[in-house]
Amino acid sequence: MAISRAECLALDVDDPIKHFRDEFVLPDGTIYLVGNSLGAPPRTTMAAVTRTVEEEWAGRLVGGWNVSGWYDLPLTTGDRLAPLIGVGPGQVVVGESTSIAIVKAVSAALGLRPDRRVIISDLASFPTDRYMVEGLAKALGGYEIRDLRDGEDLGEALSGALSDEVACVLLSQVDYRTGARHDTAAVTARVQASGALMIWDLCHSAGAMQVDMSEADFAVGCTYKYLNGGPGAPAFIYVHPRHQAEAEHMLTGWHGHAAPFAFEPGFRPADGIRRFTVSTPHVLSYAPLNAALDIWERVDLAAVRAKSMALTSLFIDLVEDFCAPYGLTLISPRDPERRGSQVGFSHPEGYPIMRALIDRGVHGDFRAPDVLRFGFAPLYIRFADVYDAAATLAEVLEKEHWRDERYQQRLAVT
Amino acid sequence: MAISRAECLALDVDDPIKHFRDEFVLPDGTIYLVGNSLGAPPRTTMAAVTRTVEEEWAGRLVGGWNVSGWYDLPLTTGDRLAPLIGVGPGQVVVGESTSIAIVKAVSAALGLRPDRRVIISDLASFPTDRYMVEGLAKALGGYEIRDLRDGEDLGEALSGALSDEVACVLLSQVDYRTGARHDTAAVTARVQASGALMIWDLCHSAGAMQVDMSEADFAVGCTYKYLNGGPGAPAFIYVHPRHQAEAEHMLTGWHGHAAPFAFEPGFRPADGIRRFTVSTPHVLSYAPLNAALDIWERVDLAAVRAKSMALTSLFIDLVEDFCAPYGLTLISPRDPERRGSQVGFSHPEGYPIMRALIDRGVHGDFRAPDVLRFGFAPLYIRFADVYDAAATLAEVLEKEHWRDERYQQRLAVT
Repeated sequence: MAISRAECLALDVDDPIKHFRDEFVLPDGTIYLVGNSLGAPPRTTMAAVTRTVEEEWAGRLVGGWNVSGWYDLPLTTGDRLAPLIGVGPGQVVVGESTSIAIVKAVSAALGLRPDRRVIISDLASFPTDRYMVEGLAKALGGYEIRDLRDGEDLGEALSGALSDEVACVLLSQVDYRTGARHDTAAVTARVQASGALMIWDLCHSAGAMQVDMSEADFAVGCTYKYLNGGPGAPAFIYVHPRHQAEAEHMLTGWHGHAAPFAFEPGFRPADGIRRFTVSTPHVLSYAPLNAALDIWERVDLAAVRAKSMALTSLFIDLVEDFCAPYGLTLISPRDPERRGSQVGFSHPEGYPIMRALIDRGVHGDFRAPDVLRFGFAPLYIRFADVYDAAATLAEVLEKEHWRDERYQQRLAVT
Repeated sequence: MAISRAECLALDVDDPIKHFRDEFVLPDGTIYLVGNSLGAPPRTTMAAVTRTVEEEWAGRLVGGWNVSGWYDLPLTTGDRLAPLIGVGPGQVVVGESTSIAIVKAVSAALGLRPDRRVIISDLASFPTDRYMVEGLAKALGGYEIRDLRDGEDLGEALSGALSDEVACVLLSQVDYRTGARHDTAAVTARVQASGALMIWDLCHSAGAMQVDMSEADFAVGCTYKYLNGGPGAPAFIYVHPRHQAEAEHMLTGWHGHAAPFAFEPGFRPADGIRRFTVSTPHVLSYAPLNAALDIWERVDLAAVRAKSMALTSLFIDLVEDFCAPYGLTLISPRDPERRGSQVGFSHPEGYPIMRALIDRGVHGDFRAPDVLRFGFAPLYIRFADVYDAAATLAEVLEKEHWRDERYQQRLAVT
């Protein structure tokens, strides 16, 4: 056996960031390996939400826009989030969704490279990235989307795709299925050397590791995964300061206007990052995110990354040890440096296997066609959880629990 | 005197919808005439929000997407809202903001009228409408925005602007400053007779009167004004069933995909109204809106409209009676049929006057350059409130409270 449960418990005792687990609400009897999809709530969430509803909305009504700082929430929240992606104040705003942020970033990038008509997209990205680019390119007309193929080596793929026709490249730092992690500095440099602009999607990396966007042109990402901002919490967009004076995106709402309360007939972009806001922020949805950022202010991302690599490596070792006979195939990189904070295994009967696992309290998720996906949020997942998850997976496979009629039935109707 | 305070109190006793006031939280000592900007919270808001945070998010974690119905919130909330704008189920989705909804509606309309290259916009609309159209038209290229001028008679303006080049017309049912209200049926018929598509912005009408969008092509609006959905609550978009099979907007996110969990490389729009969703809904921001819709299910909009007309007419009468010497000019239509649920007066010193009024507990708002704006949310504003607001305004003007140094100072720094 690779390691005993007792040894895992000892690792938990020595874990330098173990105390953060107490700051989250986690259900009893559940090993929650889906924090890469929806993070767990900070314990302070209800207090933050109550304050927004009772003190701010009920207490001040429309006065909340100024007195409670609602109007500037996209900027103040962006400034708090900025250190998590390695950038400074005045470079990030929070609002809308990652999908909408992609439209802002790509439309701004195209405006900065007016003579280039190719957008490089990656079929390994979460599909909405490609879909948003597709909708934008179709509407604008005259653009070509050049797709990197799924599974291709990124270096080789970029060699074939980059040219002086390419305006921008949109890639995910961490692959949503395999967890494969790109070297953002190297890729950014290479893309920029070709004259194109680099846009990173950080949905599966922000909050799971140190991220350094200081040389990237744009970055977008959600806040409800590792960042624990709550279901549908607003997304973020980063714009490098060198572009802020010239970058103009197409979603030109009144909050991005230079003088929003002058009610001028035409649009004039605000100075700085504010022009990347659109309109009335979803105030209530910022409250849990700001509660989570109260925690993140105290987190050492290097320690998060070290624990993340240890957790995922341990899970791979244990699953391969416990489950060797049962036909699971690791689809994540074996080198922890090349991996995000998640591990994927493929299995032809992945869906009923995941159902059976969830029924036993181990929550991962399934991604079509055959991927069992497990996320390890370092702030609240323990080494003993990793041991128990692997052991439960082995039990499900060994006893063929997933062949129970009910899992097969669920498969048939899904 | 037009009417006595005692007579106003008697009107309140006889008000058939007076009981709804008890369902809202309103601060003591405040007459809140800004419900047309941000509605007051229903008393059930905290319970609804607590349920979402504690039972759904903390209790079910990622399971909330299916078990708690988060995934379908845009559709289920849309179906609940639909009767308030005179349409049926499967015709409305709730999400994002009015500004984003305008991009969806206008881009879809342009796709339905590919040979027409003019968009009619109205400079009397809230500016973000025009700004979003401007950003869209600039990005797409080859489109002309034809602006109706502020203050122009709409019939005459449309005569000059409509032609067989016009793809769509975007108008607000109720003017955000003056409260002037358009006859949507007549305007819609006229626009459609020219071959163009009609898009209504209902921000200042939904929840204040009966609205009938059953013949309109598209409608958009926010939910945080008369509808009391909370600060930054998600917006809505209505798409007439006759367009749903063909209308394709440009914000093609994965929630609008025909098979969002198949993770296909290319975008295929979902059938029906679901294609007008974009991506992960801001779950928490739907909770107060659904609490408000629990109230709206029991509201007779004809009674709301009758009370609204009575409140606004009373306010005009009282202000003109009490404040005759002080240079206020009514900018709202005098005919209640042609008015929404708000009243505007212009005054060259409107800003410090409004500050002084707010300091005395009467909350209206100021819109540049010189408009004092008062909204009357019929569910919670009383006839006695109208009397007291007018009397307080007269006191401020009579005693020249607004000439106090502090109001002038605030003006200087704003």
